[in-house]
Amino acid sequence: MKIYSLLLLLLFHSTLKAEDGYRLWLRYDRVTNSRLLESYARQTRSIALTGNTPTMALAEKELLTALSGLTGRKPEITRQQGATTTLLIETASAKLSKAELSTLGDEGFIIKTTGTGAGQVLVITANTDRGVLYGVFHFLRLLQTQESIASLNIRSVPRMKLRMLNHWDNLDRTVERGYAGFSIWNWHTLPGYIDQRYTDYARANASLGINGTVLTNVNANATVLTPPYLQKVKALADTYRPYGIKVYLTARFSAPVESGQLPTADPLDPRVQLWWKNKISEIYALVPDFGGFLVKANSEGQPGPQDYHRNHAEGANMLADAIAPFKGIVIWRAFVYSAEVSDDRHKQAYNEFVPLDGKFRPNVLVQVKNGAIDFMPREPFHPLFGAMPQTPLLMEFQVTQEYLGQGTHLVYLAPLFKECLDSDTYSKGKGSTVAKVVDGSLQGHALNGMAGVANIGTDINWTGHPFGQANWYALGRLAWDHQLSAAAIAEEWVRMSYTNDPGFVQEITRMMLASRETMVQYMNPIGLHHIMATGHHYGPAPWIADLSRPEWNPVYYHRADSAGIGFDRTSSGSNALGQYHPGAAATWADPDTCPEEYLLWFHHLPWQHRMKSGRSLWNELCHQYNQGVEGVARMQETWEKAGKKTDEQRYRQVKMLLNIQHQEAKWWRDACLLYFQTFSRQPIPAVYGQPEHSLDYYKTLRFPYAPGN
Amino acid sequence: MKIYSLLLLLLFHSTLKAEDGYRLWLRYDRVTNSRLLESYARQTRSIALTGNTPTMALAEKELLTALSGLTGRKPEITRQQGATTTLLIETASAKLSKAELSTLGDEGFIIKTTGTGAGQVLVITANTDRGVLYGVFHFLRLLQTQESIASLNIRSVPRMKLRMLNHWDNLDRTVERGYAGFSIWNWHTLPGYIDQRYTDYARANASLGINGTVLTNVNANATVLTPPYLQKVKALADTYRPYGIKVYLTARFSAPVESGQLPTADPLDPRVQLWWKNKISEIYALVPDFGGFLVKANSEGQPGPQDYHRNHAEGANMLADAIAPFKGIVIWRAFVYSAEVSDDRHKQAYNEFVPLDGKFRPNVLVQVKNGAIDFMPREPFHPLFGAMPQTPLLMEFQVTQEYLGQGTHLVYLAPLFKECLDSDTYSKGKGSTVAKVVDGSLQGHALNGMAGVANIGTDINWTGHPFGQANWYALGRLAWDHQLSAAAIAEEWVRMSYTNDPGFVQEITRMMLASRETMVQYMNPIGLHHIMATGHHYGPAPWIADLSRPEWNPVYYHRADSAGIGFDRTSSGSNALGQYHPGAAATWADPDTCPEEYLLWFHHLPWQHRMKSGRSLWNELCHQYNQGVEGVARMQETWEKAGKKTDEQRYRQVKMLLNIQHQEAKWWRDACLLYFQTFSRQPIPAVYGQPEHSLDYYKTLRFPYAPGN
Repeated sequence: MKIYSLLLLLLFHSTLKAEDGYRLWLRYDRVTNSRLLESYARQTRSIALTGNTPTMALAEKELLTALSGLTGRKPEITRQQGATTTLLIETASAKLSKAELSTLGDEGFIIKTTGTGAGQVLVITANTDRGVLYGVFHFLRLLQTQESIASLNIRSVPRMKLRMLNHWDNLDRTVERGYAGFSIWNWHTLPGYIDQRYTDYARANASLGINGTVLTNVNANATVLTPPYLQKVKALADTYRPYGIKVYLTARFSAPVESGQLPTADPLDPRVQLWWKNKISEIYALVPDFGGFLVKANSEGQPGPQDYHRNHAEGANMLADAIAPFKGIVIWRAFVYSAEVSDDRHKQAYNEFVPLDGKFRPNVLVQVKNGAIDFMPREPFHPLFGAMPQTPLLMEFQVTQEYLGQGTHLVYLAPLFKECLDSDTYSKGKGSTVAKVVDGSLQGHALNGMAGVANIGTDINWTGHPFGQANWYALGRLAWDHQLSAAAIAEEWVRMSYTNDPGFVQEITRMMLASRETMVQYMNPIGLHHIMATGHHYGPAPWIADLSRPEWNPVYYHRADSAGIGFDRTSSGSNALGQYHPGAAATWADPDTCPEEYLLWFHHLPWQHRMKSGRSLWNELCHQYNQGVEGVARMQETWEKAGKKTDEQRYRQVKMLLNIQHQEAKWWRDACLLYFQTFSRQPIPAVYGQPEHSLDYYKTLRFPYAPGN
Repeated sequence: MKIYSLLLLLLFHSTLKAEDGYRLWLRYDRVTNSRLLESYARQTRSIALTGNTPTMALAEKELLTALSGLTGRKPEITRQQGATTTLLIETASAKLSKAELSTLGDEGFIIKTTGTGAGQVLVITANTDRGVLYGVFHFLRLLQTQESIASLNIRSVPRMKLRMLNHWDNLDRTVERGYAGFSIWNWHTLPGYIDQRYTDYARANASLGINGTVLTNVNANATVLTPPYLQKVKALADTYRPYGIKVYLTARFSAPVESGQLPTADPLDPRVQLWWKNKISEIYALVPDFGGFLVKANSEGQPGPQDYHRNHAEGANMLADAIAPFKGIVIWRAFVYSAEVSDDRHKQAYNEFVPLDGKFRPNVLVQVKNGAIDFMPREPFHPLFGAMPQTPLLMEFQVTQEYLGQGTHLVYLAPLFKECLDSDTYSKGKGSTVAKVVDGSLQGHALNGMAGVANIGTDINWTGHPFGQANWYALGRLAWDHQLSAAAIAEEWVRMSYTNDPGFVQEITRMMLASRETMVQYMNPIGLHHIMATGHHYGPAPWIADLSRPEWNPVYYHRADSAGIGFDRTSSGSNALGQYHPGAAATWADPDTCPEEYLLWFHHLPWQHRMKSGRSLWNELCHQYNQGVEGVARMQETWEKAGKKTDEQRYRQVKMLLNIQHQEAKWWRDACLLYFQTFSRQPIPAVYGQPEHSLDYYKTLRFPYAPGN
């Protein structure tokens, strides 16, 4: 009886444990399906894990934690395979042929059922311990998502070499465009204090296959290159190394000047070259596997080679030459647009970079945002993809939701990522997708990859919004395998983060998949873009017209007037379309064939323009905005029903957040329609929700302490 | 067998749960003493809890959570007393006489065993539900610390009316002098999103009896008084109300001007008076139990009545008159010192405020820091205590460790708090302690209290350093009952936060009790003070002499020269001593009778001055600094031994932090001794640790991103 009551007590206690979200998708709660539970317990009864590297020790620890949680039994793990071994974990296992192993590279893995009957053994192997760790996480994912492991033959090799997070984190712990609190890196207490977060961050990334992290903001601070800070960087690199994660830093181009040692940062000046050589030697002496530099140069006020009348290639190559002896790389951002250039901002990066194709050193990648403007709710793919065949282009997605509802909107981003990756550049004929450009397969670049601007902060659940975790997860999973579907990734994440309950999984996956389109509708329907408030980018402000640089003003982008609305980027306008391969541009060029989701991106059209729905453009705008608001209401209904199947804490969190999202969707709708109405001079049809306030009211709203600015 | 294995699994799993510190002292882990466990289970077998206010619901929830954890059995809680009731929880219980209840006020409680045999019932009661909630937390503390509850007769009434936290939190979430991350209040997502932290913060405070919180920095921002922010304040007040916690705000004196509505903030201007009346009405319409304002005026650049040639009483009274109809209060800080006044900073608050005694409205308190300079490692009590008999003085302690090692030093502050509270002002004869001044008993002030500048932030464990929690705990416990000893409070906290293991409790309590003296020794021995670095106040910089205001320079305070060191505050010097009652000042005035801990605070003495140890002053300085460093080494040894009895995560955290503390203790010693040596021109005796670096090295250290600045 005592045993029973203690058991009940423990069970009760475990339900009391708050789901604060810290555990992410690595919760490892008990498997509820008893048949699977038995099968998992049987297969993991006796584990042999050979090799004693720090990474193998992490694999062992993960198995111990995970299987104890999932099966309720602490597994027995030995160092050597025996007669009873059911699960064998080792590098270059002799259970597999050399041929099988040879195609795995240094990060791929195999999970394979070998032998039969009593001699049946499940093998997780790879050529390196990192590969084995990835395999272990994959195996645990199968258990977490209640997949059968009865007969496995899984071979998984990452489709990209660099799978990275970019942190726009400052040394004072503020995060540019961060909505989950502040930077997880407490630079002040480093290197002496290694926060538990640092380890758990690496573990979560390793579980996805993320293998690189840029610790500092692209709007860079040269202080991170000073000796005391390099000691701190070393401490982080030492922590991350066993997880297969390399650290990178942003290099402020003017660092030689700011260090006080040189009067110039001209990349062709031998003193500058020597300064960087010495600095890089200093870094590698502390961090032998340092990844390299990410550089934002001559963009939005950052210093760069153009300050000395050198081009981007000359700037990047100077750093690349200095870092090449250490096998480091330079990632040079293509996000440039100039106050002095009057041409459509959409075109400037292409104009600047295409002539430089072929001029970069082999250890340079150019990092290109998914679209030509700036992480809008929806953008056509960036015209640079496919246009620089001799240069490896690294994809830059934004995981943090700068323009997508920031910290309070539930927007699942995998559909956005996939939309871009699956876009066809036609650069080498039909099927030349963006994914093939960035994974290097189209033009044969061994150096290739994908980066996400992280949404991670000090909030206990890492991402502020509980569903923000799904976007970190999706970025990592797609960097490993961009052929995964958005739905499959969502389902995995829901199962691991909440429950395997089929109804819950189905409903919440559906809600997530629809969320991005809903957000587009209540923010930027029909190809509208860049109509958010200035500075913090929080909320709508399409009326802004007084900023010093024309391309910072929303009116630059929507161009609403009494005749109509939209940006003419055809040959009669800015001809940004001319930068795309004709195969891609053809349908976009004609308003009759252009998908309506891009209509006002490429065309200025009259308010009476007839849409496919039969509505006028104005009425369609009203319709779309209302669809967006209603979409959020449907999300609220879904959550209200599904919420009963989840824990109290996250249920209440998401409920409050969806309520904010609904309020803000109405705010976007009402403010934007009232403003555009001053041009269209037409009523908002009575079937739709009518604005709660006047346009003047929306114009007076101020948010002086909005985060992330 | 299945039951057993599941049980083992659950037990195992609970050990896997990381001790991240979020639970503070409310961990409620299983009682390990089986005899007590049985007794607790028996006494809580059948609980009757009457009354259905939100506060009673919180008491019920707390009992449910706590007893499930402590006893392993979910308790049965009914709404009505029955024949089997073992624990009765209600307001104004008829089990007690009216006389017994009459002395409890509206916050005191009684926990009393009534009846005998089968009719024995334990009663927790009070005149209000808040009192009952405090009683419940006290009862749970008895269980957590493994006290017998066989026969209880506890009557507890708080000795002070206002038991407050002051948060120096800014609206952008930075925290002035905060070392535990950032502000827990995410103003941006309020009022729509109520973070779990907000509730758990209130719960932790209620467990200590803290009944007020000032949400905003004393260096105030008028934005918090604007309508959108008052909606956010309301949301917090609504959350905190059931926990018995009132919210307060800091009032920026120039708010009427900054609001854009008035050309002046002159407190005697009727328009200004009307502005505040209207603003206060607006606040109370949203927050009917709003506590009132905390004001820092005409201090360190803050606006105030002196800007209009009015005195502090005129400023405070204007606000007091406006808030009086709502029963609100004004707390006016005495922390003032002027750039224009050349007199010893030590004397300025006294000179400014004593003449105003008797001129403040009855709903004004003057808030006085424990010492006259600024939260130094050791200060004599502030001369204002006892010197303003007609004015209630509220104690201001600093819980955040601005000058006491900031986020990485283990310093238990109860001994510092007690040292001040137990100091004798002699203002109404011997025994007129500071405690009696601030609890109102000495001069019969019904309005009285104590505030702590909070050390709370977004770090998962709330306070950054795991032992910082003990200082929050001690502040709350002493505000309730300043007669508790520092040792008793430490022991309670250790038992609740770690374990009841007697060896661990004894060793760690001993370590905590010695920690403050150790910190004084390695930072500010023999009465030295204010010799820290400028701005961030991190680390030593006794050499600073070039700041614009003389009293901001460390050299102003230590006055080291070839003749000696120390600040002559006797009648031959600044005569700050003259502000103290002769009973208090007598021993301090003569270097031969002055306790050596205050020696250089009050006297400038030659390097050869003979100390009680027989050492010269210089050698004693060397000795003390070394004692401090060795004290930290002893803490490291203690932790290393005791660490085996605690969890891995906190063991490693504290170990890393003690290592930093040891490094920094040496830094303080070496930097200060090398600098003072330039005056004493004597060697550091060879028996002591010798400096690792040169004085120039220490002078060049820079910390541009030190937190809390």
